[in-house]
Amino acid sequence: RIMRPDDANVAGNVHGGTILKMIEEAGAIISTRHCNSQAGEPCVAALARVERTDFLSPVCIGEVANVSAEITYTSRHSVEVQVNVMSENILTGAKKVTNKATLWYVPLSLKNVNKVLEVPPIQYARQEQEDEGKKRYEEQKLDRLETKQRNGDVILPVINPEPHTVGYSQSSLIHLVGPSDCTLLGFVHGGVTMKLMDEVAGIVAARHCKTNIVTASVDAINFHEKIKKGSVITVSGRMTFTSNKSMEIEVFVDADPFVDESRERYRAVSAFFTYVSLSKEGKPLPVPQLLTETEDEKRRFEEGKGRYLQTKAKRQAQMQQAARQ
Amino acid sequence: RIMRPDDANVAGNVHGGTILKMIEEAGAIISTRHCNSQAGEPCVAALARVERTDFLSPVCIGEVANVSAEITYTSRHSVEVQVNVMSENILTGAKKVTNKATLWYVPLSLKNVNKVLEVPPIQYARQEQEDEGKKRYEEQKLDRLETKQRNGDVILPVINPEPHTVGYSQSSLIHLVGPSDCTLLGFVHGGVTMKLMDEVAGIVAARHCKTNIVTASVDAINFHEKIKKGSVITVSGRMTFTSNKSMEIEVFVDADPFVDESRERYRAVSAFFTYVSLSKEGKPLPVPQLLTETEDEKRRFEEGKGRYLQTKAKRQAQMQQAARQ
Amino acid sequence: RIMRPDDANVAGNVHGGTILKMIEEAGAIISTRHCNSQAGEPCVAALARVERTDFLSPVCIGEVANVSAEITYTSRHSVEVQVNVMSENILTGAKKVTNKATLWYVPLSLKNVNKVLEVPPIQYARQEQEDEGKKRYEEQKLDRLETKQRNGDVILPVINPEPHTVGYSQSSLIHLVGPSDCTLLGFVHGGVTMKLMDEVAGIVAARHCKTNIVTASVDAINFHEKIKKGSVITVSGRMTFTSNKSMEIEVFVDADPFVDESRERYRAVSAFFTYVSLSKEGKPLPVPQLLTETEDEKRRFEEGKGRYLQTKAKRQAQMQQAARQ
Repeated sequence: RIMRPDDANVAGNVHGGTILKMIEEAGAIISTRHCNSQAGEPCVAALARVERTDFLSPVCIGEVANVSAEITYTSRHSVEVQVNVMSENILTGAKKVTNKATLWYVPLSLKNVNKVLEVPPIQYARQEQEDEGKKRYEEQKLDRLETKQRNGDVILPVINPEPHTVGYSQSSLIHLVGPSDCTLLGFVHGGVTMKLMDEVAGIVAARHCKTNIVTASVDAINFHEKIKKGSVITVSGRMTFTSNKSMEIEVFVDADPFVDESRERYRAVSAFFTYVSLSKEGKPLPVPQLLTETEDEKRRFEEGKGRYLQTKAKRQAQMQQAARQ
Repeated sequence: RIMRPDDANVAGNVHGGTILKMIEEAGAIISTRHCNSQAGEPCVAALARVERTDFLSPVCIGEVANVSAEITYTSRHSVEVQVNVMSENILTGAKKVTNKATLWYVPLSLKNVNKVLEVPPIQYARQEQEDEGKKRYEEQKLDRLETKQRNGDVILPVINPEPHTVGYSQSSLIHLVGPSDCTLLGFVHGGVTMKLMDEVAGIVAARHCKTNIVTASVDAINFHEKIKKGSVITVSGRMTFTSNKSMEIEVFVDADPFVDESRERYRAVSAFFTYVSLSKEGKPLPVPQLLTETEDEKRRFEEGKGRYLQTKAKRQAQMQQAARQ
Repeated sequence: RIMRPDDANVAGNVHGGTILKMIEEAGAIISTRHCNSQAGEPCVAALARVERTDFLSPVCIGEVANVSAEITYTSRHSVEVQVNVMSENILTGAKKVTNKATLWYVPLSLKNVNKVLEVPPIQYARQEQEDEGKKRYEEQKLDRLETKQRNGDVILPVINPEPHTVGYSQSSLIHLVGPSDCTLLGFVHGGVTMKLMDEVAGIVAARHCKTNIVTASVDAINFHEKIKKGSVITVSGRMTFTSNKSMEIEVFVDADPFVDESRERYRAVSAFFTYVSLSKEGKPLPVPQLLTETEDEKRRFEEGKGRYLQTKAKRQAQMQQAARQ
């Protein structure tokens, strides 16, 4: 679809959140279609996880985003979908790859939302495709268990913070979940949640460096718990790490199903977003370094540094491999 | 209402689709009100057909669109509504007629969506108004039967197409039908469908001529089949004909009710949109000629030429008639 | 326009904020049109104040809201607009008055946003209309000066609050101001701000009483300062007073023009919203009493009680007057 002024920031770059939402919509459509392709209980595919996603190049207002999706692996109860986004400038005809994302969906019965159905198997052209898919399946399963434990943390308010401290830029928003945020089952679309997360992360980044910023990448996101229509969700973000030219922001989503349930507030999702600051000409700018004050902030900074170095090493390895081929 | 940046293309002209959506909403309100004006089964008016609509002058951001609607004919089971759109520049006070559209609605029972109810008859000031309305009614009925047969065609993807061929500019989008797209009965508003159709047609036109484009007219649109909430709709467009300064694009809407029905994908709507290319000063520009390759493309081009010449002849006859009066 | 699922809460009642936004749009159109009706510098009418507004009866999804606006007084630099909202059930034809609101606008030059232009005078049918208008004008002018002083307060975060305390339900949201939130001059529409304020007030009320709630009235709202495109606005709300069946919530709007200005965060708007809790049958329910802890909270509770008793007395006086007539 054509990118509109509302999809973009002040500098005309489309929000990462808008693109994440489109990616998720495409993934939900293809996996729901696949899971209903055999006679049986009708179901809706619910997003369980999005693998780490890089934003390779910014999209601008007036460009057309082409989204294509393909099912690349099926386990007994889950579907792996690969989504590609190409942006096209329809005036010049120029096309470029913007995103490649991998998403995992689980089919939930339309009759009983707590029942996970079986997924019809796909055919693989070669045996090794199935083996590689299985390996990816096992890896993400392990990672989902691990992050579940990391989730206990809470972002506490800070009064009169100094510039460039964690407390100075931390931000949160509340959103009342309306009908158009939800699937047929009455639960929030994963894409809607990711768009709100990107919105908060972007405000944290902009508050920190006071320049135009864009999403560079999103860490793997796990959707532990469904969020019901009518809930209030609180999306909070705080900066955890800065390198010379990038900022890492941790984002939490907490759901408060307060109107029609006795249930307490719970952590529904969490993830790390990486942002870069851009000059008016679109070049990456140095960012002010994050001032850490407490022990926890220092520990989180070191953990962020670890993730940053790991990603950098992985990318260099990939580039060397690509150069050899 | 005031036209916002989101309603418009990059050059500030409001999308034809936004105006079609407003027209349909006004038509749906007045005909639903009329069909419920007598005691009886409550009902909702569903759009069955929009007559050919010309966009007389473009509307710009910041202008106010005034929409007025009037019932001009009732048959036993259908209502004809005439809708006029005036755009008003509230800074200068200038007003101009933007659109005159004729829509046909059918009342569906709120209790049983497959039951068409009877329409309370309206009073005519003169007998000839009723006779002319009856003639229009018969004509559109005939036309609806004819287009039903034309609907079988499918748009296939083309790999590495040459510029200005049909395959080069053809486009499609998919949309998951959410609650806010739907009427009280849980079916997509006709106006929502038309807005998506205009969006695809606009992308086809812009890809072909790589300039700023605006909707000039829409062929009569027939709504053969309802589209249910939760369906995925695929809207596809391909160019069929170019004159010196206009492009004709055929748009198909296919619905996939895959979640809660055993039903196959079906063709729900189809129509022809005509676009013109505008210079920065708002003057019509010549457009690159469409390169037809296959026999089918050549046949469709000739058919498009037929429609173009017919419309041109009709307009000249109207102007001569107006000049004589 | 037709009220959609997205305009309403879970119980199907349309948000007060949606109605406030429609009222403001109608007021902005009529006053901009009036201020440009004489040759001179083109201008846009900016909202300066909304008088206290009662929500007389809830509007439901599927109903049509009819908004009409009239200019009732002009001073040298401001316009008073009276807006009426009627809701119409198009199935049954039933109509009822939903709102009567009074708004004050000021014309700002399109060339220089800091220049307030002169308003063309209107003609009054009777001299007493002008005199009464002048009285209303003087009263609101006085009130605007007074609230400017009240604005210094800030909502501080509370950690682990007890149920039914002020800290327990207080809430805030952040919103990045996008192009479609803004007028031609690049400043936020007053209606957009009011919709966000109602959203926060509604979440505070729902958190406090955990039932379905609706807006009953909004105190006079003064728009002291414009908010620029690209700003981040923080909308915060806290409960100030509870009567047996109503809750008063104070809402602040703070603007942070952080991207392209050196300017500090400033208070742009503040107001009191009153909410009631409704049973499933739509009857008002008793609400849990607010637990005040600090001296400031106790003082604000007493002030809220004063406003509540004053409004009650005024309403009784009006009803007695109406009974006598």
